[in-house]
Amino acid sequence: MKTFKITHPDENIREALINKINNLTKPKGSLGTLEELALQIGLIQQSLSPTLEHPQNIIFAADHGIVEEGVSLSPKEITWQQISNFLHGGAGINFLCRQHSFTLKIVDAGVDYDLPYEKGIINMKVRKGTRNYLHEAAMTNEELELCIERGAEIVRQCYNEGTNIISFGEMGIGNTSSSSVWGSYFTGIPLEQCVGAGSGLDSAGICHKYNILKQAMDNYKGDGSPLDIIRYFGGLEMVMAIGAMLQAAELKMIILVDGFIMTSCMLAASKLYPEIMAYAIFGHCGDEAGHKLLLNAIGANPLLHLKLRLGEGTGAVCAYPIIQSAVKMINEMDTFVHAAITKYF
Amino acid sequence: MKTFKITHPDENIREALINKINNLTKPKGSLGTLEELALQIGLIQQSLSPTLEHPQNIIFAADHGIVEEGVSLSPKEITWQQISNFLHGGAGINFLCRQHSFTLKIVDAGVDYDLPYEKGIINMKVRKGTRNYLHEAAMTNEELELCIERGAEIVRQCYNEGTNIISFGEMGIGNTSSSSVWGSYFTGIPLEQCVGAGSGLDSAGICHKYNILKQAMDNYKGDGSPLDIIRYFGGLEMVMAIGAMLQAAELKMIILVDGFIMTSCMLAASKLYPEIMAYAIFGHCGDEAGHKLLLNAIGANPLLHLKLRLGEGTGAVCAYPIIQSAVKMINEMDTFVHAAITKYF
Repeated sequence: MKTFKITHPDENIREALINKINNLTKPKGSLGTLEELALQIGLIQQSLSPTLEHPQNIIFAADHGIVEEGVSLSPKEITWQQISNFLHGGAGINFLCRQHSFTLKIVDAGVDYDLPYEKGIINMKVRKGTRNYLHEAAMTNEELELCIERGAEIVRQCYNEGTNIISFGEMGIGNTSSSSVWGSYFTGIPLEQCVGAGSGLDSAGICHKYNILKQAMDNYKGDGSPLDIIRYFGGLEMVMAIGAMLQAAELKMIILVDGFIMTSCMLAASKLYPEIMAYAIFGHCGDEAGHKLLLNAIGANPLLHLKLRLGEGTGAVCAYPIIQSAVKMINEMDTFVHAAITKYF
Repeated sequence: MKTFKITHPDENIREALINKINNLTKPKGSLGTLEELALQIGLIQQSLSPTLEHPQNIIFAADHGIVEEGVSLSPKEITWQQISNFLHGGAGINFLCRQHSFTLKIVDAGVDYDLPYEKGIINMKVRKGTRNYLHEAAMTNEELELCIERGAEIVRQCYNEGTNIISFGEMGIGNTSSSSVWGSYFTGIPLEQCVGAGSGLDSAGICHKYNILKQAMDNYKGDGSPLDIIRYFGGLEMVMAIGAMLQAAELKMIILVDGFIMTSCMLAASKLYPEIMAYAIFGHCGDEAGHKLLLNAIGANPLLHLKLRLGEGTGAVCAYPIIQSAVKMINEMDTFVHAAITKYF
């Protein structure tokens, strides 16, 4: 697989950042998470005056062979239909991108449909959907490498457009199943705790989904390495997101992580390159069983808890103004000395 | 006391609102809190296409006689010094108001200092700080009525300026003490669970604060009615906020509630007019002991949990983009029928 040069941010600037934040006109620590975000972003950018430039949200879309087994309530055609809705501007992610001035890129990683690329969808299709991992690997090594490389390529393009903060979302009926399996493998949390309702299964549906995924894991005879788990149970859109995240970290961009699916992608990416976590900001924790467990397992504190379960990057983009607030705080607040205020605590 | 005509929103429109929200192109309920907010705002405005107009944040400032007893780590002069910082635009609330296009109004409800009103501070001073309620009532009946009336007057002015969503904040060294006492009286939660660190007390300081407040409650010999509790232990800025909240609800404005202090004011207001709760959106839950307990007691689900403890309205204004998202959702998302998508769940 393509290699990435991902390093932890230089810690030398940490003390100066903390000093600047502590001398703003507020009791020390009283802006809580905004202070933590300002510190993280200052470290990533190696700057006491960090900025956010040209935010973009990339949606990777693909279909999943496992859907044949009835693991999802929604029919497969929702994947391509919803992509058309993205193009028309009427989906959840559209109004959020407009609200927060995000550019939206839609990437076909592997949708099982001939999409209208002339309308602006980026054609990175590796395959028309994954194979059904109940019986065989979802993708080949070559397909995995194509996904990683193409995800990285999209991010290099964004970087060249001036972006320094990037959010990733997904559209792919069936992808909570892959996320549950990855999550269980990579954290050791039992599968039954990682399986949830997806787009709205009832308890019988969840039980069926669990049984199918348990059988798939029992059937797996690979080497158990992170890359093999990613390949065997992955979605094409999810592996492309991993490639994108790795490239973003190499380029020292801020990575805004959406919900359950993107959290499992970041988790998988961190098994390949642990240093990536320094670049990640988790936007949202939803109600999907297992999401909170995965977040805890990787020590993440998501910014929002709004019971969103739509995907598309909605949880990440919705959280963006909080990150803006953190950057404005460190750049725009006055200091005690300058404001001639008695320093308080 | 001045009376207000506060009624619960007409429920007839509820079904049409739910129907509209459920037919947007997303699995039902998948935008979680955004859907709940859109419903609440639609009810308040009696509209399927609600709007947010000219948001304003009003900071009420005052001093507290109880500070003589050493209940706060910060010296009293912080109150007026920080008000000067608001005027210069360098405080926490300033960058947030700029970020989200809030007009900021600063109201002197009872600061123990001669402020420069010519610089834009609104002079509603009732008294130079409250009396020390360890020994006597914080304010007289006449002072309470002045506070209520003047808070209402400010809100009528905002309403006439076209505002339909209003946030309230405070600046007043010592006001977590009043909030703890109110919170304990109005919820029945023991005082010791309602007392916290304020602007940064250590455990010995918290213990001293608790002992003083316990003694004050033991010394109280009033009639125990909500209005008498408000008067005896209140802050002038807090009672003015109550008047403002009541007037806002009468005018069917959305009331954005900030942190611990403003939550205790909303709690107190709801003891006078329970219907006010239909107009309240709680912006933030911080770490101050007792805040979460008060929120639970009144059944509130705050939008953010960012460990803020600055006051000034920062938690409320920081949450504003979430409310904007909810309004954009109901106005800008496409419906299944129009988008020609198979309805999914």
